[in-house]
Amino acid sequence: MRQFFVSELCEYETPKIVSIKSKCLGIANRLVQVTIIIYLIIWVFIVNHGYQYIDKAAISVTTTKVKGVSYTNSSDIRIGNRIWDMADLVVPPQESGALFITTNAIVTHNQTQGICTETEGIGANCSADSDCQPIGKPYHLSYGISEGTCNHTTGTCVVRAWCPIEDDSSPKNEENSTMKNIGDFTVFVNSHVHFPFYDKARSSLIEFIDKDYLHRCNYHPTDDPYCPVFRVGDIISLAEAPTEPISDSHFRKMAVKGGVITINIAWDCNFDYKESKCKPSYAFKRLDTFNGNSLASGYNFRHPIYFYESNRLTRHLVKAYGILFTVITDAQARRFNIITFLQNLGSGLALLGIASICCDLILLYCHRHKNYFKENKFQTVEQLQGLDMTTIRELLRQHMVSSQEEDKEDSLDQKDECEKSLN
Amino acid sequence: MRQFFVSELCEYETPKIVSIKSKCLGIANRLVQVTIIIYLIIWVFIVNHGYQYIDKAAISVTTTKVKGVSYTNSSDIRIGNRIWDMADLVVPPQESGALFITTNAIVTHNQTQGICTETEGIGANCSADSDCQPIGKPYHLSYGISEGTCNHTTGTCVVRAWCPIEDDSSPKNEENSTMKNIGDFTVFVNSHVHFPFYDKARSSLIEFIDKDYLHRCNYHPTDDPYCPVFRVGDIISLAEAPTEPISDSHFRKMAVKGGVITINIAWDCNFDYKESKCKPSYAFKRLDTFNGNSLASGYNFRHPIYFYESNRLTRHLVKAYGILFTVITDAQARRFNIITFLQNLGSGLALLGIASICCDLILLYCHRHKNYFKENKFQTVEQLQGLDMTTIRELLRQHMVSSQEEDKEDSLDQKDECEKSLN
Amino acid sequence: MRQFFVSELCEYETPKIVSIKSKCLGIANRLVQVTIIIYLIIWVFIVNHGYQYIDKAAISVTTTKVKGVSYTNSSDIRIGNRIWDMADLVVPPQESGALFITTNAIVTHNQTQGICTETEGIGANCSADSDCQPIGKPYHLSYGISEGTCNHTTGTCVVRAWCPIEDDSSPKNEENSTMKNIGDFTVFVNSHVHFPFYDKARSSLIEFIDKDYLHRCNYHPTDDPYCPVFRVGDIISLAEAPTEPISDSHFRKMAVKGGVITINIAWDCNFDYKESKCKPSYAFKRLDTFNGNSLASGYNFRHPIYFYESNRLTRHLVKAYGILFTVITDAQARRFNIITFLQNLGSGLALLGIASICCDLILLYCHRHKNYFKENKFQTVEQLQGLDMTTIRELLRQHMVSSQEEDKEDSLDQKDECEKSLN
Repeated sequence: MRQFFVSELCEYETPKIVSIKSKCLGIANRLVQVTIIIYLIIWVFIVNHGYQYIDKAAISVTTTKVKGVSYTNSSDIRIGNRIWDMADLVVPPQESGALFITTNAIVTHNQTQGICTETEGIGANCSADSDCQPIGKPYHLSYGISEGTCNHTTGTCVVRAWCPIEDDSSPKNEENSTMKNIGDFTVFVNSHVHFPFYDKARSSLIEFIDKDYLHRCNYHPTDDPYCPVFRVGDIISLAEAPTEPISDSHFRKMAVKGGVITINIAWDCNFDYKESKCKPSYAFKRLDTFNGNSLASGYNFRHPIYFYESNRLTRHLVKAYGILFTVITDAQARRFNIITFLQNLGSGLALLGIASICCDLILLYCHRHKNYFKENKFQTVEQLQGLDMTTIRELLRQHMVSSQEEDKEDSLDQKDECEKSLN
Repeated sequence: MRQFFVSELCEYETPKIVSIKSKCLGIANRLVQVTIIIYLIIWVFIVNHGYQYIDKAAISVTTTKVKGVSYTNSSDIRIGNRIWDMADLVVPPQESGALFITTNAIVTHNQTQGICTETEGIGANCSADSDCQPIGKPYHLSYGISEGTCNHTTGTCVVRAWCPIEDDSSPKNEENSTMKNIGDFTVFVNSHVHFPFYDKARSSLIEFIDKDYLHRCNYHPTDDPYCPVFRVGDIISLAEAPTEPISDSHFRKMAVKGGVITINIAWDCNFDYKESKCKPSYAFKRLDTFNGNSLASGYNFRHPIYFYESNRLTRHLVKAYGILFTVITDAQARRFNIITFLQNLGSGLALLGIASICCDLILLYCHRHKNYFKENKFQTVEQLQGLDMTTIRELLRQHMVSSQEEDKEDSLDQKDECEKSLN
Repeated sequence: MRQFFVSELCEYETPKIVSIKSKCLGIANRLVQVTIIIYLIIWVFIVNHGYQYIDKAAISVTTTKVKGVSYTNSSDIRIGNRIWDMADLVVPPQESGALFITTNAIVTHNQTQGICTETEGIGANCSADSDCQPIGKPYHLSYGISEGTCNHTTGTCVVRAWCPIEDDSSPKNEENSTMKNIGDFTVFVNSHVHFPFYDKARSSLIEFIDKDYLHRCNYHPTDDPYCPVFRVGDIISLAEAPTEPISDSHFRKMAVKGGVITINIAWDCNFDYKESKCKPSYAFKRLDTFNGNSLASGYNFRHPIYFYESNRLTRHLVKAYGILFTVITDAQARRFNIITFLQNLGSGLALLGIASICCDLILLYCHRHKNYFKENKFQTVEQLQGLDMTTIRELLRQHMVSSQEEDKEDSLDQKDECEKSLN
């Protein structure tokens, strides 16, 4: 046994190489090899940082804060003439990773539980009671339970519901009916990231940002790319037309029916450099306009404001159109790592095998001297044939003996060698 | 130097191959190779699309919209006899990626701040003041601060709290006490996905869906798998028993105590085909019934409705049982990519090495002619021994000289070759 | 054709190996190989479970439930003297994956829409109307629309806003002004995970947890690491100073201005063992204190409480400071998978190639006998030269003929062989 290891340790096995003097093969071979090496260096190591361990398991939380005040000045009593500040416009007031700002609203005032007639155009029109659903059945698209009777003056069915029923037909001149100034509102987006693997944390408030700067600054993709304070109008413009100059026209269009915007915060931290070099980058995208499908576009929902009046639970029903900002953080941190490096190097070298495969194919099937090369590359070993088992056993015994002797011998002068080397 | 490159370019090195005529080895070798190739083709390339770059960094936002109206008709004044529409039932009214619908409620009316006695069964029972906690200490499980005295009529301690204190014992016949019709409510789930890498976007409203279809349609796993409008009762049934036919019995059971449901939207877009071929698939799962642990199952929370009455801040406390739908989007887009293809091919070919490894083991340790083969496979090169350094130096000098000459020579006729080839 | 396959099947090609008797090379070779094998076993297979398929596409939903009651007892009427229970403190009442608990508040009572003068220090100070913004312009940092006039008694501009305007200057002795007992509140965090690939689900309520235990227990990193009920004070302490003993001082500091905490739930399920062995582990981190930047630290937002008084919409504006808990679930499940195993093994073996590469470099460039070895490793095959094409054709024809004959022959005795083997 020990002898076996000694012999293993004291000999090195390397493939026998046939070196063929052939320009085309040589060049072909080097070309493929060089291509692979270039791919390795450029794609694997430079572009994809194959020498760095990438930690994608980042923990991130983003908080937002809106500043601004709006007002409406509309003859349409459904929105009326009043002040709206963010406490009125941001619903729900706190939402981690998202933010909804109302830009337009239809308020149905003083609803109480009672009996009233349906609005038109929801399939509740009638000329006789029989046209209405039986008592107790709901109207799927409206918010009332049928009373089973028909109101002949309005020509619609009678329901039990929150009355009066909402009239959400759009006002005449829409753009004027929306909340004012909201394009000028600012959103402070504070992205907190923590990389557990490297135990490092970053925040949108990178080193050079101080209180004054934060109050002054305003994000701009080129002029001020690290300011975490965003003008609502700018975000919409950048989301809708990233290449065009910023303009509020995009916002004004969107304000009427609302929309869905993602704010994408990318952190790509290279901890081979100073931490402070790791800065966020922001991208914006509108998601609710899928190949111009009007069904998908816009965003609205209803929320109630409850109160008591003359001892009855009463509510204002607000149908709020607005912009839903969703913040998506995409963070990764990387740093040189020897294991990652070797893994990529190893699998890269394995690829080099392809070079020989290609050239061997040329060598054996395409080259004009292929047979001549074959003879030199291959050494054919015939099966031991026409021998009866006795002879084979004989042969084998001899082999065994001789090889054992050889083993003994070389293990012997091996020992000499080793002893020598120790002196 | 130049000479070195020329010689490198004009020769090709390929391993010397010993080709052994042996059926068992040949077959073994091919078998392993074929297995590996089949694995490559089927598993790596067909099943896992090894020829496509997969972009998993999708940006997705899902918005939901509920339609329907419900009512209660209960003798239990805690829920009473009234209309509930989604403005009453959906709390909070807007939640990105999630949706809560109340299915059952316990309302404690007209709570005001004051002094009252604890309810039973929260460890606040007493027969003397000494049984109650000292003044100012909170009762962990209730919502009152101890006044340190015992009310002997009720046999419970006196606390400062929102009074009257909630009695959340379940009503007698539960199923009837829940909101009606909610199984028939519909949820419109609009999933927006954007793939930044390919700069393509998709939405639940795929090409063939128009306004009429959307108002008519109703998701069914086999009959109508692309309709983004879901009946609440159907979702619950599919989540609880995907294989059984759809029935509302599952919903009715769940409505009493609520539950947690995930709606899983899977986008697997193969952009080697038309974009319009990329459609979502939906799956549903109930998560709050972990090995029948009654502690985990159900879902409820409390929310207040504030108002003023006789100049005092008053509130209704609603303990809302209901269904929390969480939408999880799992999106990926893929398209043919030569680099990905080569990477997988390369590492696949590397695997082929295993074949030779196996067969060499047979060849060298198991085959009946192993020694005979060994002799042919291996060419043993003895260490230069029994030579004093002078002789070695001598030998080496000769080697160097000769080899240099050789180099010169072949580099010479190399040049001839090359020049020839240029004429 | 058939003949080709037969010959392919009945011969095995293996590289010719030159076995060099050299201690240094042998040892070098084995050393590198052993290193790579150790790396494979330890890093790839033991540390990174290279023999298991890892499913990271887990579906998880986390629900939370807060218990406790608080009160304030402050001379500052902005927070006053009252009871606060979780219905008052948790805003919004339901938020999937997040939870906000108010710890301090500034309430501006009975705001109505009207005309009033700005507060100081928001850049609305004036000595003449000209100092104020023109009518209709908003004050960016306040919540009012300028009326264009200056109130000389207060020395600030007049605005249309929700009046009175909030005074959010901090109260005198802050720590006393915060809500009491909140450090003692408990949060029940129920994490539900589902692994679609293995179709297995887990929940924080692992097997041994029953009702009694749940009511009794209290998470502690070492004493009780699986209890899903957390004391708020403990979480903050563990997040701020994981190594120090738990103390509420951290919470008391944070309560004044609030903060952002992540609760990280890690599920690492090894389904080669019993499911019940798969337990969650919890980690906590404060994210809002980025290198002591006071701008980033703390968390607050405003929410309104609407009501009607003397027929006017009135509101309490609550500026809520508090702790935002964000729950992040990081789940993976793994189980032995033969394909994964072979893939890692294959690419591991490919790495072994590096050993030969290193040693060949020594062999050919560093070893004192390098020329001697070169001669043995390489067999040079000169290009057929100085031959006119006729001779080459002649030669080739002969080769073809002979090789064809050879083929015939060995394919013949091949057949014999095969037939023999069949008898």
